[in-house]
Amino acid sequence: MRRGIAVATFALAAAVAASAEPGMLGFAPEQATQQRDLEARFDAHLSAEEIGEWIRTFSARPHHVGSPFGRESAERLAELFRSWGWETEIETFQVLFPTPTLRRLELLEPEAFTARLEEGALPADATSGQRDEQLPPYNAYSIDGDVSAPLVYVNYGVPGDYEELERRGIDVAGKIVIARYGGSWRGIKPKVAAEKGAVGCILYSDPRDDGFGQGDVYPQGGFRPSQGVQRGSVADMPLFPGDPLTPGVGATEEAERLPLEAAPTLTTIPVLPISWSDARPLLAALGGPVAPEPWHGGLPLTYHLGPGPATVRMQLAFDWQLVPAYDVIARLEGSQYPDQWILRGNHHDAWVNGATDPVSGLAAVLAEAKALGALHVAGWRPRRTLVYAAWDAEEPGLLGSVEWAERHAEELAGRAVVYINSDSNSRGFLFAGGSHALEPLVNQVAGDVGDPQTGASVLERARAATIVYGEAEARERAEKGGDLPLAPLGSGSDYTPFLQHLGIASLHIGFGGEGDYGQYHSIYDSWDHYRRFMDPGFHYGVALAQVGGRLVLRLADAPVLPLRFVPLAETVAVYADEVQRLADSTREETATENRRIAEGVYSLAWDPEDGWAPPALREPVPHLNFAPLENALERLQERAEAYDEVVSAVEAAGVDESRGGDLGRALLAVERSLTRPEGLPRRPWFVHHVYAPGFYTGYGVKTLPGVREAIEQREWEEAEEQVRVAGEVLHAAADAVERARAILDPGS
Amino acid sequence: MRRGIAVATFALAAAVAASAEPGMLGFAPEQATQQRDLEARFDAHLSAEEIGEWIRTFSARPHHVGSPFGRESAERLAELFRSWGWETEIETFQVLFPTPTLRRLELLEPEAFTARLEEGALPADATSGQRDEQLPPYNAYSIDGDVSAPLVYVNYGVPGDYEELERRGIDVAGKIVIARYGGSWRGIKPKVAAEKGAVGCILYSDPRDDGFGQGDVYPQGGFRPSQGVQRGSVADMPLFPGDPLTPGVGATEEAERLPLEAAPTLTTIPVLPISWSDARPLLAALGGPVAPEPWHGGLPLTYHLGPGPATVRMQLAFDWQLVPAYDVIARLEGSQYPDQWILRGNHHDAWVNGATDPVSGLAAVLAEAKALGALHVAGWRPRRTLVYAAWDAEEPGLLGSVEWAERHAEELAGRAVVYINSDSNSRGFLFAGGSHALEPLVNQVAGDVGDPQTGASVLERARAATIVYGEAEARERAEKGGDLPLAPLGSGSDYTPFLQHLGIASLHIGFGGEGDYGQYHSIYDSWDHYRRFMDPGFHYGVALAQVGGRLVLRLADAPVLPLRFVPLAETVAVYADEVQRLADSTREETATENRRIAEGVYSLAWDPEDGWAPPALREPVPHLNFAPLENALERLQERAEAYDEVVSAVEAAGVDESRGGDLGRALLAVERSLTRPEGLPRRPWFVHHVYAPGFYTGYGVKTLPGVREAIEQREWEEAEEQVRVAGEVLHAAADAVERARAILDPGS
Repeated sequence: MRRGIAVATFALAAAVAASAEPGMLGFAPEQATQQRDLEARFDAHLSAEEIGEWIRTFSARPHHVGSPFGRESAERLAELFRSWGWETEIETFQVLFPTPTLRRLELLEPEAFTARLEEGALPADATSGQRDEQLPPYNAYSIDGDVSAPLVYVNYGVPGDYEELERRGIDVAGKIVIARYGGSWRGIKPKVAAEKGAVGCILYSDPRDDGFGQGDVYPQGGFRPSQGVQRGSVADMPLFPGDPLTPGVGATEEAERLPLEAAPTLTTIPVLPISWSDARPLLAALGGPVAPEPWHGGLPLTYHLGPGPATVRMQLAFDWQLVPAYDVIARLEGSQYPDQWILRGNHHDAWVNGATDPVSGLAAVLAEAKALGALHVAGWRPRRTLVYAAWDAEEPGLLGSVEWAERHAEELAGRAVVYINSDSNSRGFLFAGGSHALEPLVNQVAGDVGDPQTGASVLERARAATIVYGEAEARERAEKGGDLPLAPLGSGSDYTPFLQHLGIASLHIGFGGEGDYGQYHSIYDSWDHYRRFMDPGFHYGVALAQVGGRLVLRLADAPVLPLRFVPLAETVAVYADEVQRLADSTREETATENRRIAEGVYSLAWDPEDGWAPPALREPVPHLNFAPLENALERLQERAEAYDEVVSAVEAAGVDESRGGDLGRALLAVERSLTRPEGLPRRPWFVHHVYAPGFYTGYGVKTLPGVREAIEQREWEEAEEQVRVAGEVLHAAADAVERARAILDPGS
Repeated sequence: MRRGIAVATFALAAAVAASAEPGMLGFAPEQATQQRDLEARFDAHLSAEEIGEWIRTFSARPHHVGSPFGRESAERLAELFRSWGWETEIETFQVLFPTPTLRRLELLEPEAFTARLEEGALPADATSGQRDEQLPPYNAYSIDGDVSAPLVYVNYGVPGDYEELERRGIDVAGKIVIARYGGSWRGIKPKVAAEKGAVGCILYSDPRDDGFGQGDVYPQGGFRPSQGVQRGSVADMPLFPGDPLTPGVGATEEAERLPLEAAPTLTTIPVLPISWSDARPLLAALGGPVAPEPWHGGLPLTYHLGPGPATVRMQLAFDWQLVPAYDVIARLEGSQYPDQWILRGNHHDAWVNGATDPVSGLAAVLAEAKALGALHVAGWRPRRTLVYAAWDAEEPGLLGSVEWAERHAEELAGRAVVYINSDSNSRGFLFAGGSHALEPLVNQVAGDVGDPQTGASVLERARAATIVYGEAEARERAEKGGDLPLAPLGSGSDYTPFLQHLGIASLHIGFGGEGDYGQYHSIYDSWDHYRRFMDPGFHYGVALAQVGGRLVLRLADAPVLPLRFVPLAETVAVYADEVQRLADSTREETATENRRIAEGVYSLAWDPEDGWAPPALREPVPHLNFAPLENALERLQERAEAYDEVVSAVEAAGVDESRGGDLGRALLAVERSLTRPEGLPRRPWFVHHVYAPGFYTGYGVKTLPGVREAIEQREWEEAEEQVRVAGEVLHAAADAVERARAILDPGS
């Protein structure tokens, strides 16, 4: 014990001297050299050609959950993992997965038109004609229905759009709404529409957003053609993702299930996605006021709001069956800390062929697994246990990962150190989002991987892209130098159960931004599309494997887990500042708006012929007590600084490995400390109090979600209460960081 | 003389006491009451029905300069003025007005297409079929030409667009460019294209800008239909407007004329305007990179930049004849100050039928003239002389007003107090731009005229519109209360020769913003269009006559001319601040850009497949000496405050009318003092140093143009020189204001 102190004390001085040139996080200098050798050997096993071949073969047929090729894929993946030396099993869940038995959409008035509701096969796309195995375009977890009503165009169908409609005196109660994709996650659109009283919801892909407005359409270019439809889930995932019938527990065969009619995440109105060629006659038949200019899409018509004269009928019925979901789970046991798990995953199911989504990312993960297996065969043993997963049923709502995480919650609680996710991948720039304790590690790794096209590091390329294309604040930070920030994670892929339900530090990584990405959730997300428009040569598959592999290798082998808590504290401080500014700006805007209404400004500015109605006066916004958050933040900042200082010293000097087990457990407890068992207001499944998907944005993240959403929803009492909760959470985090520091530096 | 002092001194004290409630500018309280009675009598003569009838009859046939109905219109206008008691003459100039003898546009590659180049007659539009008298779609002052070349899409064709093209390695030298209308005055587009080496220029109306992207198209709605074409002049008006052959002198029969080949304002490449239905096959045939997203218009295609494979041939030939332009000039002699002239004008020529442009404004001006004539017949005599003008040949480039102003420059120099212009008018909000010494007057008048739709004053409606639709700075100012700012004037209508060539304080007024304005310069600018989509009921014609009539009446009758100079000084201070911030931001942006280029940020951020080229390094921006401007401004501010204080006192107490003639001359000299005989760099015709149309924006104003454009063009020596000139101009203005004050308050 005494020796420990001496080491740490000595090390502190050394660290101060060496701080100009930080070494490899988690490693002493000589260990870092070995690690770099290992990474070079890892790289030697990666092959772009092989990644391409996996993309081709795993996208050769449609492979949604419950499909024959989905099962074949899972089995083939398991075989591959096994062949590379991984201890592998397929874990099966029984999940609710409705598929359509009736889809019909007609324009009844002012003239008859029946929507085609199909994507056509293309000679230039070899798999587009696999009609028998393709799921038709539909939205999973829409309810059955047969509704006829006048149509209203609601733009993206987000809450702000309905405020615009209300100002124009347009009420969607009893109407069918048509919303374009984009602006939020799709499931928000029917949820808000139903809250407003609509009886049906049509979603369509406007060509301005992912069709000819973005670039040449498939097969000439990569963007969505006139017949292209975006499939997708519309379950209320911000309430909880995963199987709608088994919230909170793994959907094993014997699990208790809600009756279908009690499943809270199904929609309450029928929802159907269509192409713009089907949407065009509907939109052209709308009368009423001209839509506000930002609502105009790319179709050659004047976008009107309605309601009517367009009247439509939607008929939808589904087969509400349970299907098996096959999660492929592969392990390499840790030699030193077998109970500290580093998890890595990507889903394997697709809406149709899914060459980009998910096979491009899956192929990179496979490349990593193969290379790690080869290192293992050659004698390398990870200090910590590796778990590689290929999830099924991500597309309908993260079912494979959620059910697995729920089922294994208990063993993961004390063991899972980090979960690293990927999904789609293409030519372009590294995207990395996740837990901010991992920000320095991600930056180091990104600085060590070369960009295939420019030869610069993928970090420098991401920095350049942020400077040139980013928003003002991000641009400024990137230009300053220093670490690039991790994006906070909302939802949209399989990290959600790990990060937001179990409080496991998580990352989501991938490349993108230079593909022609207009085939999302369509039959045209195919091998022919991928090889021409997403990553010809598959070099970004290799780059992703290099980033993912290095993250895994360093997390697995580092004597001290490469986490830092100052970036976490500083990032949360930014969020705290944001929510305070949000409260202030809401207060000011409310006061301004109320004054304008009282002074009749709107009545004078609006065209009397347009029938506008001034917005209603709103309750003034009180000043809130943010002190609990501020005080907790200050303490977290202090503790984080203390830990980061000690750990740098210890890394430089070499850790006392006898404390490695305790240290690992203490470190993984930090992210857990950001959660509360009772979860967020009205959605207990989401327990993380720093990151959550937005209740009204879906995939879009809300940071400090309890506080932020209460302010956005003008729930002032709840906001104050949530400030208090956030303060407690940050105090708990400060305590957790302090416990880890005490283990590293017990004599202090 | 002594008495004068005593009055002024007493009055000063009274003014301080009364300043909370300012009276009618220029009038003592009891005079103001009489003036309000006069205005009520004026209003009683206005008739919406009659305005509608004038709009119908003056737009009954095409009436461009040189046309039979143009001549008839001038004669009929003269008769009307005479019938109302105005001393009226038609003044005739001989002006260059080319009309097309050959217009042909073909797509040669990749497939053949011949543009239609015609607007079709519509059954719903009674005058659209008057084919024999219509000018076909063309751009006046395009040169003759026959060119064939690959096509390049240049967005709006403004300088910034060519910077974007250069970054993508696209050179327009030897190419034909196609630019959409909008983003600047049309004449800028061929001018910049030619500077960049293009050999031809096609202009088209994109449906996003004034077609179905804005609202329903004619005849269902008021916006531009697929066949609609915008005619218009492309002479280099920022160099000088008016007859291209007689710069600086009136184009009388005997005037000396430049030979055609020496006329500096003709284009140097052929230019042709087309409809979107003609443009669509050309744009669809373009290859090359996808245009940047803000360049995308409303057509259902992917906008590419080219060059080629689209190759086009343009053939244009014109009859370069001189035609007579008929200016109708009507006077009511002033009773007390016949040598102080208040001028009011609107053009009467149109591109085709021109119900909106110009007849809607002309009809309101006629209504004023009729009412003033009736007051005159009933015994009212204006103190100052009124001159009402109906200009010919505005459309090809302000020819009627420019030639008249040039010819009468000398008599106007010592006499013209204010010129008030109108042009198109429609339902909506009052627009007022002009000399800032008139800002308080315009606000007072606008506060006294009721909006036809809401019953509020047109001032309060304009304020509300600014608050709801305006840019941040304008919004903030409007919300504070106080006077609404006058917009500074660039060009685009007949105020230009008066304001910017002769230094006569000017205004431009009209209503708009609630019409469906997509018929600009087309055969569809017709009676049928106007009565349905622009001002059904013609109530805004009455409102314009009320505003214009009050301005004229108060300027004509006020014992002291109702000018104030603090608003001028404060406005110029804002412009001075803007140009300094422009220099600073240009310096910072240049430094940032140079650093990014040096660090290779662009090379890393841009897609290597897109063939981008990093921009060239730019010379760093030096710090400029703005002290001459600042010092002069401070002096102008002091003198303006002194004048405004004295004049308020004098107004309240009653002026010594024996000094009225001197005072009028002194006051009109203030706006003249903002000019310099040598004019702006490279364009001596424009002599005003506070307001000018932009050399590269055309209609768009540049305030402190000498300084601002030198900074924009990165001519640092010229910028410093122009700061010095601007300082001298403002010193001269301070002196002129001081002379006026000394006349009002000679003993001080």
